[in-house]
Formats: sequence, C-alpha cells, structure tokens
Amino acid sequence: MKKVAIIMGSDSDLPVLKPAFEQLRKLEIPFEAHVYSAHRTPVEAAEFARNARDNGFGVLIAAAGKAAHLAGALAAQTTLPIIGIPVKSSTLDGLDALLSTVQMPAGMPVATVAIDGAANAALLAAQMIAIEDADLAARLNAQRKAQHDAVIAKNNALIID
Amino acid sequence: MKKVAIIMGSDSDLPVLKPAFEQLRKLEIPFEAHVYSAHRTPVEAAEFARNARDNGFGVLIAAAGKAAHLAGALAAQTTLPIIGIPVKSSTLDGLDALLSTVQMPAGMPVATVAIDGAANAALLAAQMIAIEDADLAARLNAQRKAQHDAVIAKNNALIID
Amino acid sequence: MKKVAIIMGSDSDLPVLKPAFEQLRKLEIPFEAHVYSAHRTPVEAAEFARNARDNGFGVLIAAAGKAAHLAGALAAQTTLPIIGIPVKSSTLDGLDALLSTVQMPAGMPVATVAIDGAANAALLAAQMIAIEDADLAARLNAQRKAQHDAVIAKNNALIID
Amino acid sequence: MKKVAIIMGSDSDLPVLKPAFEQLRKLEIPFEAHVYSAHRTPVEAAEFARNARDNGFGVLIAAAGKAAHLAGALAAQTTLPIIGIPVKSSTLDGLDALLSTVQMPAGMPVATVAIDGAANAALLAAQMIAIEDADLAARLNAQRKAQHDAVIAKNNALIID
Amino acid sequence: MKKVAIIMGSDSDLPVLKPAFEQLRKLEIPFEAHVYSAHRTPVEAAEFARNARDNGFGVLIAAAGKAAHLAGALAAQTTLPIIGIPVKSSTLDGLDALLSTVQMPAGMPVATVAIDGAANAALLAAQMIAIEDADLAARLNAQRKAQHDAVIAKNNALIID
Amino acid sequence: MKKVAIIMGSDSDLPVLKPAFEQLRKLEIPFEAHVYSAHRTPVEAAEFARNARDNGFGVLIAAAGKAAHLAGALAAQTTLPIIGIPVKSSTLDGLDALLSTVQMPAGMPVATVAIDGAANAALLAAQMIAIEDADLAARLNAQRKAQHDAVIAKNNALIID
Amino acid sequence: MKKVAIIMGSDSDLPVLKPAFEQLRKLEIPFEAHVYSAHRTPVEAAEFARNARDNGFGVLIAAAGKAAHLAGALAAQTTLPIIGIPVKSSTLDGLDALLSTVQMPAGMPVATVAIDGAANAALLAAQMIAIEDADLAARLNAQRKAQHDAVIAKNNALIID
Amino acid sequence: MKKVAIIMGSDSDLPVLKPAFEQLRKLEIPFEAHVYSAHRTPVEAAEFARNARDNGFGVLIAAAGKAAHLAGALAAQTTLPIIGIPVKSSTLDGLDALLSTVQMPAGMPVATVAIDGAANAALLAAQMIAIEDADLAARLNAQRKAQHDAVIAKNNALIID
Repeated sequence: MKKVAIIMGSDSDLPVLKPAFEQLRKLEIPFEAHVYSAHRTPVEAAEFARNARDNGFGVLIAAAGKAAHLAGALAAQTTLPIIGIPVKSSTLDGLDALLSTVQMPAGMPVATVAIDGAANAALLAAQMIAIEDADLAARLNAQRKAQHDAVIAKNNALIID
Repeated sequence: MKKVAIIMGSDSDLPVLKPAFEQLRKLEIPFEAHVYSAHRTPVEAAEFARNARDNGFGVLIAAAGKAAHLAGALAAQTTLPIIGIPVKSSTLDGLDALLSTVQMPAGMPVATVAIDGAANAALLAAQMIAIEDADLAARLNAQRKAQHDAVIAKNNALIID
Repeated sequence: MKKVAIIMGSDSDLPVLKPAFEQLRKLEIPFEAHVYSAHRTPVEAAEFARNARDNGFGVLIAAAGKAAHLAGALAAQTTLPIIGIPVKSSTLDGLDALLSTVQMPAGMPVATVAIDGAANAALLAAQMIAIEDADLAARLNAQRKAQHDAVIAKNNALIID
Repeated sequence: MKKVAIIMGSDSDLPVLKPAFEQLRKLEIPFEAHVYSAHRTPVEAAEFARNARDNGFGVLIAAAGKAAHLAGALAAQTTLPIIGIPVKSSTLDGLDALLSTVQMPAGMPVATVAIDGAANAALLAAQMIAIEDADLAARLNAQRKAQHDAVIAKNNALIID
Repeated sequence: MKKVAIIMGSDSDLPVLKPAFEQLRKLEIPFEAHVYSAHRTPVEAAEFARNARDNGFGVLIAAAGKAAHLAGALAAQTTLPIIGIPVKSSTLDGLDALLSTVQMPAGMPVATVAIDGAANAALLAAQMIAIEDADLAARLNAQRKAQHDAVIAKNNALIID
Repeated sequence: MKKVAIIMGSDSDLPVLKPAFEQLRKLEIPFEAHVYSAHRTPVEAAEFARNARDNGFGVLIAAAGKAAHLAGALAAQTTLPIIGIPVKSSTLDGLDALLSTVQMPAGMPVATVAIDGAANAALLAAQMIAIEDADLAARLNAQRKAQHDAVIAKNNALIID
Repeated sequence: MKKVAIIMGSDSDLPVLKPAFEQLRKLEIPFEAHVYSAHRTPVEAAEFARNARDNGFGVLIAAAGKAAHLAGALAAQTTLPIIGIPVKSSTLDGLDALLSTVQMPAGMPVATVAIDGAANAALLAAQMIAIEDADLAARLNAQRKAQHDAVIAKNNALIID
Repeated sequence: MKKVAIIMGSDSDLPVLKPAFEQLRKLEIPFEAHVYSAHRTPVEAAEFARNARDNGFGVLIAAAGKAAHLAGALAAQTTLPIIGIPVKSSTLDGLDALLSTVQMPAGMPVATVAIDGAANAALLAAQMIAIEDADLAARLNAQRKAQHDAVIAKNNALIID
C-alpha cells in the first residue's frame, strides 16, 4: 500500500494532528510524520515532496497555521495529491490559514479540509488510496457503518430532562 | 481507469465547470456530468453517490453555491473521495459556499478547492486516480512541466513600458 | 395540537438546546427530540422528515454546527416548515453554521434564528402553530407580557453606583 | 385562509420582492403589501403589526437592508411569526442586513431567510399556513415535485461541449 | 445643563456601561439610566425618546448587543442626537451589534462608537453638550490635557528589561 | 449659529459628500468644506482642528476611505465632536474604513455613521447643534415629518403587478 | 545604488504593478521585473531570491493574489527585506491575498502594503534604500512636499455647487 | 549603525513588544522605545517622527490596536520606513488593527507585519538596515541558519505516540 506523509510546519501543531495519526493507524495505513517548514526549511520540504512518489508515498498531508503556505509549497513540487489542514492560531480563528490553504491558483490544487480537521485529512487520504484498494474501502465502509450505528444508539439513548 | 463524476447543483453552474471538463479531457480521464440537487433531488443524488463505486467511479466532484450542501450530501452516501467546488453567487462573494463546503464534521471529509476552482477540482481528481496510475502521473508531470515553461517564457518576454 | 420535533446533528449539541425544551414545555407544546446526523445517518434523517407530517408534526427544528447541513437536509424531504439553529463550534464563532443554514437556494427555505438561539427556535415553532391555535396565541401573548413586565421591573430597580 | 403581509422598509425594495408576490399568487395565498419603515413610520409599522392577528393575518414578511430593524420592530408588536428578508445594499454585500435580522435576542425570533431570498420567504410563509391546511400542503408538495422533475429534466438534457 | 440618558437593552449590559457613568460624573453632567428594550418594551422605549427633549435631555446613549436595534428605535422617535454603543455578546465578537448600530438608513443617524466603547459614548455626549457650554468645554480640555500628560509620564517612566 | 466643517481626505471623496452639503443647506446651517489629508497635510489638518472652536465651528465632519485616519486625527486636536464618514473604496467594501473610523481608543470618540453615509453625517451634526437651538430642532422635526409622510404616500400608492 | 526587484506571480498582475514601475523610475531607482510563480516555477523563484543580495538587489517586491505565497516563498530564501503586495482577484476582494501575505510566522517577515498597493510598495522599497542614501531621501522628501502642496492646491480650488 | 525606534500607542502594549526588544538585542541593533499615542500625544508623536532621521534613526516601528493610527501618523511626518504591528485587542481579534494599519493611501506606505507580530517587526527593521550593512546581514543569515537547524532537529526528534 502507498504510504501517507503528514508534514507539520511546526511541532507545536502536533496536538492538533493526533486524530490524524489515530485515524491512519485504525485503518492500517502506513505513514510517516515530519516537521518541515515551508519557510524555515524550504529546501528539505521541497526535496521531500519532489521524491515522495518515488519513495512510496501516495498522499501528502500538510498542516500549518496563519499564512499557511506549507501545503502549497509541497504541491509545487509533486503531482501527488496534497491535503491541507488549516490550523487555528492565536488570532483570526483560523480564517487566515483556511484562505491561505484553499485559495490556490489554477494548476496547483490543495484538497482542503476544515480548520483543525486532522481526522478528516487522514480519512480523505485513506479514501484516495482506497480508490484502487478494495480492502481499505471495506474498512472505510465498516467505519462509516460504526459511526452511523453510534448516532442511532445515541438517538435511542437520548434523555431530555 | 476509474471514472470521475461531476455533479452540479444547478445547470446554472455549467459555465463555472467548463475548465473542469477541459482539464479532464486533456488528461484523457473518462467522466460523466450530472445535474443533481442535494435539496431538489435528494433521492437521486444519494442514489448516484451510493452506487458510484460499483458503477466504476473513483472520485466525485460536486459544485454548488450559497449554502452549498451538495458535496456533503454525496459524502454521506459513499466512502469515495468527494471534491467540493464552492461556487460564487450574487452575494457574499462565495464565502458562504466555501464555509458550507469545507467545514465538514469529523468522519465526512470534503476535499475543498478554491471558490470557482473547477480546473483544480478536475486536476485534484486526476491526482487521486494517478496514485496508482503511472501513465496518468506522467501526463500530470508533463502538464506541470508545460505550465512551468509557460511562466519562464512569459518572464523572458516581459516588457515593461 | 401538532407536535414539534427537535433534531440535533450530534448529542454534543444537547446543552445548547436546553432552552428550547424548556420553552416548549412552558408553552405546553408536545415535542420529540432526536439525534440524527445529515451525514452519518442520512437515511434515518430523511425518513424522519419525509414522514413527519403524517406522524403529527407541524414544525421541525434542526440544530447543527460548522457546515450545518441538517436543516437543509430535512427541508429537502418535507414541505413542513424547518427552523434552523446555527450552533457555534470551536472556530469561526458560528459564522460558518449561520451561512450554511440561512443561505438556502430558492424552493428550500430554512427559518434561521440567531447563533445558538435555541429558545427563539422553540418560540418561533410555537408562533407557527399558534397561527391557528388561539389558546396557544394567548399563552404566547401572556409570556410576552411577562417579559415586558420583567424589563420594566428591572428598570425600576436599576441602581447605579 | 389567513393572509400574509409583506412589509418593505422602502419601495426601492420592490424589485427584490417580486418573486415573493409571484410565489404567493401561485400558491393562491391572499396577501397584502405595504411600505412601512421601522424608522420613518414607527407608529404605523407598530400599529400594523399589533393589529395583524385581529385583521386576519397569519404571517408577516419584512424586507429591509443595511441595519435592517424592520422585522424585529414588527416582532416586538405581535406574536405572529415574522419572516425577515435581509436585502443587499450598496456596501457589505448584505452581511449587515443578515446579522441585523437574524441575531435577535431571546423572546423575539425572526425567521430569517437568505439575503434577497424573497421567494423563499413567501414559501416559508406558505409552509407555516399549511401546517393546518391540507390543501395548501398538497399544493406545496406539487410544487416541490415540479421542481424535482425540472432538475431531472435538466440532468437528462445536459450537453457538455 | 441638558441631561444625558443612558438606555440599556438589558441590565446585563450594566458592567459594560460603568465607564460611561464614571465619565459623566467626572464631567459633572446630569444623567439618568434606564433599562428599556426595543423589542420587549417598545412602547416605553418610544415614549421615553419621544418626550426626551421636553424632559430636558440633550443626548441619548443606547447600548445593545447582537441585532442591536435600540439606538435606531430611539432615533425613530426623536431628533435629539443618539449615540449607539455596540455591545459584544457570546458570538461574532460584536460585529453583529456594530453593523446593526452603524449602518442606519438616510434620515436616521446613530452616532456609533467602538464596540463596548461606553466611556467614549459618554465623552461624545459631553462634547455635544459642550458645543454651547464653554465651562464644560474647558473641563473636556482639562481632561484631554491630563490624558496627554499621563502618556508623557508613562513614556518617561518606561523601562524595558 | 455654530458652523459645521466638512473635511475630506481627498477631493475624490467629493461626490460621496454631496448629500451632506445638500442636507446642511436645506437646514440652513452654515458650513465650510476643505480638503485636508491626515497623512499628506498633517500640519494643516491639525491646525484646522485645533482652531476650530475658536473659529466658530461646532462640529467637524471627516470623510476618508481605506485606513481612514482623518476623523481620528482631527479628534486628537480638539474636544469638539467629530463625525466620521467611512468611505467605500475599491476593495473590502468599506469595511476597512468603517473599522478604522469607529474603533477609536478611550478618550477619543468619533461619532461614526454608515459607510458612505454623508447625508446622515450632516443630519447628525445638525442634531448636535439643535440641542441648544429650538428653531433648528423645529426644522429637523419638520423634515422628519416630511420623511414620514413620504413613506405613507408611497404605501398608499403601492401597486404590485 | 542597490537594485529593486519586482516579482509577479503571473503576468496578469502587470496592470496592477504599473504604478510601482512609475514610482521607481520617478525616484531614479534601478529595478528589474520578473514573472516567477511560487508554485509553477518554485526553483527559479527560490534561486532568484537566494542570489538576490549577491546580484546587487537591496529589496524584493512580490505581488500575488488569492493564496498569495510568493512573498513568503522569496522570504524563505533570503534575508533581504521582502515587500508583499496582496492582489485582488475575482473573489473575496483581496482579503485572501492580504491574510496570506501578512500573517507570516515568526522569523519570516513580509512587509505588507495595502491590497493592490503597488505604488506604496515601490515607495517603501525606496524608503528602505534611502536609510543610507541621503540623495534618495532628499528626493523622497521632495515628492512628499509635492504631494502636500497638491492637497493644499486642491483645498484652495475646492468649489462646492 | 542607524537606530531603530519602537513606539507603542499605550504601555499596555509592552508585553506584546517584548519579542521585538529581544530580537533587536540579539542582533546587536541599537534601539529606543517610547510611549507616544497618535491621539493623546499627537504633537510629541509627530515631533519624534519628524526629527527621527536627524536623530540617527533608520527605521520606526509602531504598535497599536483597534483603529490603529499610530504607524500612519508617524508615516505622515517622515520618509523613513515605518513598520506597523497591528495589536489584537478585546474585540474583532485584531482585524480592525490590521486593516487600519495596512490599508494606507498612496504615498504613505506602512510596512505591516502579522497581528501581534513584534518579533517579525524587529527582524524586518534589521533586514532594512542590513541592506547596506554586511555584518548585520551575516548575523541575519546565521540566525536564519539556526532556525533552519532547529526545525531539522525537531524533525529528527519527532516521536508520535
């Protein structure tokens, strides 16, 4: 199976990314995590992305806040799909990161998920890999079924006092 | 090769989607286009998404404006990756469609591209399919190279008067 | 009397909805509350809405946050009036839920109240039912009178030190 | 059948309201239209709302732009349901009118529809009246069916060149 | 000297208004404070404003949050100058109250100050009264001078470690 | 009677200000208009404001766009009331000018009117002067009455086809 | 004298940049203009920035729209000062470009000017160079004086009809 | 070496500015810090800026919140480069200060950094001075190198549990 890479612009983003790691492990998808900054380590970030396909990666996930350029910087170096997680920082409630991630120019898509949406980023990566992986698709469907059943259970247990 | 489906909430979105059709044709990716509204034809939209994987689709693209629910409504019915195009309408400059598309709850990712970003939606779909398709990946790389060369040509031709 | 249904997208919305339950009880309006997610349980949510009129409901209230599609998803399945409560979540202060709820396309209105405005959602449902229920209208007028008197009392008791 | 009143803050809002008149006529709902400003004619606006229930009205629709207080001013004088249409003006794209209409304090709901959403305001009024009017509910369902069929027809006729 | 009235839409706004009371007392300007809601006590609010000039008031200050209609509702009943204080509430950081207060239609100005800007509202009222009151103008100038000197003192005392 | 000064940051603001001139003339209030930029002519702008009270002015109106500092710059030099008109420019729809004008720090109020709200600025200036001028107050009341009657006339003439 | 480089992300930004060219020519500052995209030509853009100091440049100006990463991408490769011009595109009025340009992380400043503020970007570059160039500082002061005089002339010529 | 001045509108901004002082000390750049308010001490603020070049300053940094006029007020008095730090205050998350600082009119640039971006303001000042100071440029490059190495070290040490 192709691997997923999770790149964070700063290790302060690590807590936000925990749900992504958990989601990938739960779906038995191999992944690596790295700290590469678009601005502080542009060479390493570019090199990682440029070699990612050859190194067995299928999808790259990038998490960054404020003027969040990381996802775009990776997108510029590879034609693998890039998933961007806009991270909320101390001002503007993540709107800056959202717009900096999603409003990419023609030719350079970034698949953007919700602000701080790490679990969904991992899930989206899994969905991409599952296009040609029936077993993984089955695991995704099973997880979806479990989520459905959890809501039904909550509905049945609902007590309003 | 897996097919791509482009679903538009209204046929008034057709002009916005033209670049997506062109991009998919250029990359020789088979696709279908449909008009299904999350609200006016919820049954048909759901049925299309539910059967999409079995019908040979690999990725679904949804375009909608205002309270843009279409991408999410499709996401609720399949574990195929869904790409959402927020469409600008007569008020709020597309911000409503962007937030309605990208801010999805955990478990239901929508890969959101820029407002009116139809070309990038198609390209992102191609990148997803190319994870396991080396020929398509080569075509993506060639297109990327051509874009690069076009910028260099423009730089060389730049005249400032 | 027709019943009111309160549907929440997640049971985490329960605290926000308490004032709605209290308001309906105070006005002696029969109601049911359910957890149905537009995305995790689309079939059950749709089925509930589709059968709501036949099952004796007069109004449906939907509460959801972020890309809040629940009210619209219910609206797509019934011509009963739908009231939407945009719920504030951890980012963007509820603006995403507000726009996702209120900016509905032609043909599918959602009667949107303020962000986290559960009490007003219940009151609005009561007003709708009271169009043809003079007793309920009288209770609404009495409550309004009490609110008026409470403000006057506060004005009379105002001490500025 | 109870009547619907459409109150506009200025006769410059008339073009925005045309779809509301058409919708009400199509559904055979009796209505009146008036120009009453919350600020320029506060006494008449209040008096109209205060007497509306006795005068045979079931729902009031208010359309206003900028600091749109009209819907709230009517809501203060009656316990009939009030529907607010935020009208886009020359600046801020209707966001000012949307927030001024929807963010009502507890006890005073305004059922807010989309910016410039006059057709939906009329439809919502019809849905409220139809709670206790099976014939009108049937007409609403028929219109809904026609909208559904129109989308299916557009889907079938879709040609992408 | 003409009196100033401070009207608050809810007594929960009292803490926000304390700086206004202090400012008026410091400038020896007579004032009254009242709780009148544009929506819950529209008759009393209107009556207060309508009689304010005859009752010796020169300026009215209105503080309200969310869809802040109070200042406009007072403006509709008098040609005395109305100062509006947009009050921050639990969502949207006061932007709703700001737009609801400042974006008034032609013919109905509200002199809007900053969100939660109670001290400045009182000061502005004083400036208005001081147009024809040289003694008050002198007190305003003295206060201004003291503020200037306080900044200079802070500058001189500034220690950066 | 005290004079009103209208200061514009650029003569390109002149068309926006026409309704202010008309309003002041109609109310027979003496006024002067000047072009002074807070940034290009800071000395002259400051000098004008500093001497305004001695030169017979009662109120200053400042109109500026973008990072609209003019009203605040005048406020820093006088304790006369300053009215700020945020002017819409080519980007951001006037939101930048609105926030730059209204969000003044404690001690320096600017009475802010709506974006491009020149007529209301003039009217507000008149209301301030009328605090101690019964004749002008009477003219304001007459104008208010005429506005009321115009709305009533429009309501009576309303034809919906 | 050190040279200024103006880098645009696309040659479609050329019209926005004309005032920058004019300003630099007027101040007799040598400059080069280039088209380099942060995403389409990341290698060339990086190389240009990395060598800029050695190639005699003192300041780099970058203009880009939407998710405007260009200024930040240059900043990552050099410690020369980078000036960013957020360019307004077809949606969101330039707010996306502004936030993507200005909200840079610690260690990587971008000196951001107003949306479409090309003239000011050039002027700011000149001011930076003039820190150690008394002749250029004199030209800047002369231009400032001329701007001042132009406003005074407009003030003297102001006719209000 | 030219000095840097850091001007704060209020000494309450001191904690936000600490990283600027540290950055300047680390780079061995002489600086002064002052409290001058654009509104409370306009004369002193103007005088400081007007004499700054003659007093050996090369760059001025201004920090202010809300309607942040300080940077612009300094810019109006000197052709030295001005760096503006928008400071987040109790409402609107710094958006008001950002727009008030960055949206300057033609002829008066303010080099704006991120909201609360004091460290970057100091760094930008250093970059400006380093245009003609090879030793400082070397220190900047060394600091950049250290930041790069810190990210690489964090990447190497990354443990995901």
